[in-house]
Amino acid sequence: MSKLKVIGEKINGTRRPVAQAIEQRDAAVVRDLAIKQAEAGAAWLDVNAGTRSSAEPDDLVWLIETIQPVVEIPLCLDSANPAALAAGMRIVERTPMVNSISGEPQRMEGILPLVAEHGCSVIALSMDSAGIPATCEGRLRVARRLMAEMRAKGVPDDHVYLDPLAMTLATNTDGAKVTLDTIRAMRQEFPDAHLTMGLSNISFGLPARSHINRAFLTLALAEGLDSAILDPLDREMMAALIAAELVLGQDHHCLSYTRAFRAGLFARSEVATTRA
Amino acid sequence: MSKLKVIGEKINGTRRPVAQAIEQRDAAVVRDLAIKQAEAGAAWLDVNAGTRSSAEPDDLVWLIETIQPVVEIPLCLDSANPAALAAGMRIVERTPMVNSISGEPQRMEGILPLVAEHGCSVIALSMDSAGIPATCEGRLRVARRLMAEMRAKGVPDDHVYLDPLAMTLATNTDGAKVTLDTIRAMRQEFPDAHLTMGLSNISFGLPARSHINRAFLTLALAEGLDSAILDPLDREMMAALIAAELVLGQDHHCLSYTRAFRAGLFARSEVATTRA
Repeated sequence: MSKLKVIGEKINGTRRPVAQAIEQRDAAVVRDLAIKQAEAGAAWLDVNAGTRSSAEPDDLVWLIETIQPVVEIPLCLDSANPAALAAGMRIVERTPMVNSISGEPQRMEGILPLVAEHGCSVIALSMDSAGIPATCEGRLRVARRLMAEMRAKGVPDDHVYLDPLAMTLATNTDGAKVTLDTIRAMRQEFPDAHLTMGLSNISFGLPARSHINRAFLTLALAEGLDSAILDPLDREMMAALIAAELVLGQDHHCLSYTRAFRAGLFARSEVATTRA
Repeated sequence: MSKLKVIGEKINGTRRPVAQAIEQRDAAVVRDLAIKQAEAGAAWLDVNAGTRSSAEPDDLVWLIETIQPVVEIPLCLDSANPAALAAGMRIVERTPMVNSISGEPQRMEGILPLVAEHGCSVIALSMDSAGIPATCEGRLRVARRLMAEMRAKGVPDDHVYLDPLAMTLATNTDGAKVTLDTIRAMRQEFPDAHLTMGLSNISFGLPARSHINRAFLTLALAEGLDSAILDPLDREMMAALIAAELVLGQDHHCLSYTRAFRAGLFARSEVATTRA
């Protein structure tokens, strides 16, 4: 098990097999993804009901009711729709995380009150209506404003998962540096907040993406990332994570590493390293 | 081609196939290793004649004469024996690197004058007769003394490859942190010196070593390592290196990355990720 809190990303209605399972109310497909991600070491399961927006509240409720009997880990309700989130809150058993708020007013006004009322954890994206700031300083400014608003609503810092945001290296090869610098600055300024992000944006449009994603995760860990939204069934990624934590001195007596080795994590992966 | 200057480690007489090739004067084996490492992106080729100490001068001369007609990159003469190094200097064509000096008096007195006289580059280990200091501060103290002695002999800083030294995580899980901290401190204190090291010690005695070695290389690059002694034929390692340089903003327009992709570097490697 990694020290990093993994938010398993696979139950996402924007992925075709999941969209189909939601439409057909195919519980077996969804439960299988839930169980496998939990077994692979996810600390949270992201649950995204996808793009059928009028159906989103019902779809999200169905996903939650389908998943929560078969796993013991909490869910991360992934929606920009306050009505869907409110419906989910009514039936979710373990206090969830919400994915996400940002500096955009409709997210702050629609979602932050739900987070505060239910004592949820929440992912806070360092972007606002003007988009994603290009610089570390710009992202910090947004993060400061978000932290101030969340504190004003009584959300404790350790319920907050700040997301420094990653943009693809394909269009700007300094992009990862900006994100890494932002992680370091956030870690220093908000020592009690968690730091999370989706890793895979960094390699969008480039070939052999998993190599880039793994290097990025390794470097982000060193700067203080303590959570990530990723596919825990990607064995190469999980192996890189466990190895990086060992090298960073976070795995005393190599216990997690040797346990992962015995469990076969470092055996040749099913995931081709060449996948796009 | 990586920005990191790779010192190819495979022509080493302590490895059985190379020892046999040296004994039998089998030039084809040695030349094949030289050509393949150069093609894989080595900037230097380490040449170690192995453990037959009385024969070492002859063996090293034979290796140099065998290798230098078939590659265009310079050699790194790897010996603690001043007589062998002196014999090598007489016939080597491109100014070599010497591997290595340290704070041990016999290395300083026997080898440093040769380095100075021939204008060589030199690997300087941050250890002395008392062994490898356990702390970053201890290793820096040795490095300062070495730098002072080399400067006094007229060796310019940019001919020096400081080695912060890596010890296995199997016996001390803070060991890599010490090395990474040492790299950062050396980079700051000696901005014109190069920083290199052998990566694989870090994982000695642990399973699935290449995962650990790759994470360590990635993190060391971020701290300022600009050279490494490694096996350039290890495609997983080279892929991790090229990906890490991209993420660190060292590969403008992703040129090295896309070139490596087209050359097949990210295709599934021949090197099993499970090798011990």
